[in-house]
Amino acid sequence: MKLILARDVLAANDKIAEQNHALLSSKAVTAINVMSSPGAGKTTLIAETIRSLKQDLNIAVIEGDIQSTYDAEQISATGAQVVQINTGGACHLDAGMINESLGHIDLDAVDLLIIENVGNLVCPAGFNLGEGYKVMLLSVTEGDDKPVKYPMMFHESSALLINKIDLLPYIECSVEKIRTEALKIKPDLGIFEVSAKTGKGLDDWYRWLKKMVRRNGTQDEN
Amino acid sequence: MKLILARDVLAANDKIAEQNHALLSSKAVTAINVMSSPGAGKTTLIAETIRSLKQDLNIAVIEGDIQSTYDAEQISATGAQVVQINTGGACHLDAGMINESLGHIDLDAVDLLIIENVGNLVCPAGFNLGEGYKVMLLSVTEGDDKPVKYPMMFHESSALLINKIDLLPYIECSVEKIRTEALKIKPDLGIFEVSAKTGKGLDDWYRWLKKMVRRNGTQDEN
Repeated sequence: MKLILARDVLAANDKIAEQNHALLSSKAVTAINVMSSPGAGKTTLIAETIRSLKQDLNIAVIEGDIQSTYDAEQISATGAQVVQINTGGACHLDAGMINESLGHIDLDAVDLLIIENVGNLVCPAGFNLGEGYKVMLLSVTEGDDKPVKYPMMFHESSALLINKIDLLPYIECSVEKIRTEALKIKPDLGIFEVSAKTGKGLDDWYRWLKKMVRRNGTQDEN
Repeated sequence: MKLILARDVLAANDKIAEQNHALLSSKAVTAINVMSSPGAGKTTLIAETIRSLKQDLNIAVIEGDIQSTYDAEQISATGAQVVQINTGGACHLDAGMINESLGHIDLDAVDLLIIENVGNLVCPAGFNLGEGYKVMLLSVTEGDDKPVKYPMMFHESSALLINKIDLLPYIECSVEKIRTEALKIKPDLGIFEVSAKTGKGLDDWYRWLKKMVRRNGTQDEN
């Protein structure tokens, strides 16, 4: 019975996700859904990404949190348009929350919409939001066993950012093992080794992101 | 409608949790439910705890994972009785899973039952398992904003282990801020600053754990 239920909830979600996707496509907005464990560095990455790309792209952000406006304030400081969703206990965003948020964003003025999901390596992967691409972060401090233990998010994602590589000298974590296991789950996963804090490796991530926006037809190739 | 549903699921869960609690009490088994984000160090902590306390206490472990037997193998290496639960996608353990697992453990021979929940800072906090105490780990690499952003697990827990303190020199994280914010949410929370890897701070945790077992009447005060 729990399974039947889950299917109904997901079907209802998928229907709204399709509407979101159609709206975003009609406005030529590229949307990415950024997912990770709590504290893997999503907000820091998003703030850095906005600072580095805001000359090239108009970026808006939807911030998902169970409660608090802590992250939205950090993103607001970059000057980007931000909508905060407080899920009130729910452990992931759903398409309905995004649908409501889209009404508060001037989509005609946006090239790239970044959606920061609730920090959770499990549930967000099951809920389509109508995004173009799912992107996940994995901090090296979480350990190299994560693809084996939490495969679904790796499977659903188009890009994996292996974050906090500046801490590798102080911990036991094989980035090579993460790569190998992640590619077994998703052979065409784009993998970027980065430190959102120091900026290392972010240029490749920016190139990937700009390529996805160009593909969506909002930008000419420079 | 989603809310009504959630209430039904939780009510059904609580009923089984009460049965588990009654069974564990009748056998004088102290059970702790260990929760955290993915990669915060639960398995390392549990393995260290068993190695350090196995002369004093008979310890059994229930290992919860979405899939894989990776953690159960590490715990088995300590010589403790282990039951593995694979949740098959579910992002938290529930009381029914524990009920089934208890049938596979010789409870008469056990003083302390350690239940390792699925790595998730949100959902596990909502599901009672029939445990005596909920215990959470927070790795300092997750950042000092976690009590504000994920208050429920702090509120439900009897003890908080702030783990990976050996990494503090390399990151920005105020343990004092974690303490202050966590105690605002749960004024009687027991807080331990530890490194499960180096062993630092674990003696206080062991004292707390032995005290909880003694309270349950399975051990005389030494």
